[in-house]
Amino acid sequence: MDKLEQYRQAVQKILTQQVAEDTQNDEIESQLVFDTERDRYLLLDVGWQDLKRVYHCFIHIDIKNGKVWIQRNMTETDLAQALVNLGIPKEDIILGLQPPYKRPYTGYGSNHLIMNQ
Amino acid sequence: MDKLEQYRQAVQKILTQQVAEDTQNDEIESQLVFDTERDRYLLLDVGWQDLKRVYHCFIHIDIKNGKVWIQRNMTETDLAQALVNLGIPKEDIILGLQPPYKRPYTGYGSNHLIMNQ
Repeated sequence: MDKLEQYRQAVQKILTQQVAEDTQNDEIESQLVFDTERDRYLLLDVGWQDLKRVYHCFIHIDIKNGKVWIQRNMTETDLAQALVNLGIPKEDIILGLQPPYKRPYTGYGSNHLIMNQ
Repeated sequence: MDKLEQYRQAVQKILTQQVAEDTQNDEIESQLVFDTERDRYLLLDVGWQDLKRVYHCFIHIDIKNGKVWIQRNMTETDLAQALVNLGIPKEDIILGLQPPYKRPYTGYGSNHLIMNQ
């Protein structure tokens, strides 16, 4: 299987598992958003809890230039580890939640070079 | 043109215009997310501003059961009016940002019946 296709399937699998685990009520919708053209994948809760608006993005993962970017993770799941478990090498996973200068030290991928080494 | 296809094109057109108007910098990415299978359409800013994480969803519109749902609007654009301007009838636009009990009184569509009339 093509590497990019493997990464897409891994990301979609993880998000689909998360939505299945998510608690549901009638007024709140747990939404998967898969933009397979732009390779953007989100999981959100949208709706109303009594008179309170609920709008919350739990997970956002992008695939850019052959790398899997974790852009948001408000769950307790270690998404990077889940991606590794599905066969994605650490150097192809970018922790977008870490500031760029820290990424070379995360053990995961980096889109920046380490200077002065 | 099929009604649903017209609605999809209108929503995509509005979001594409908004992203074009959005200011950009190198570290912040303005993202369109179009899930044409589930009919979910978002506009987000994702990135870093110096040492501050930026993650912000500006617009989210869904199409469900032939109705266009405005789920989020953090812009100054009147999205409902923009949809009307593109030929979508008011009764097919749901203001998701209004609590369900208020929607029958918005002049736009409602997925709830007005009781006791």
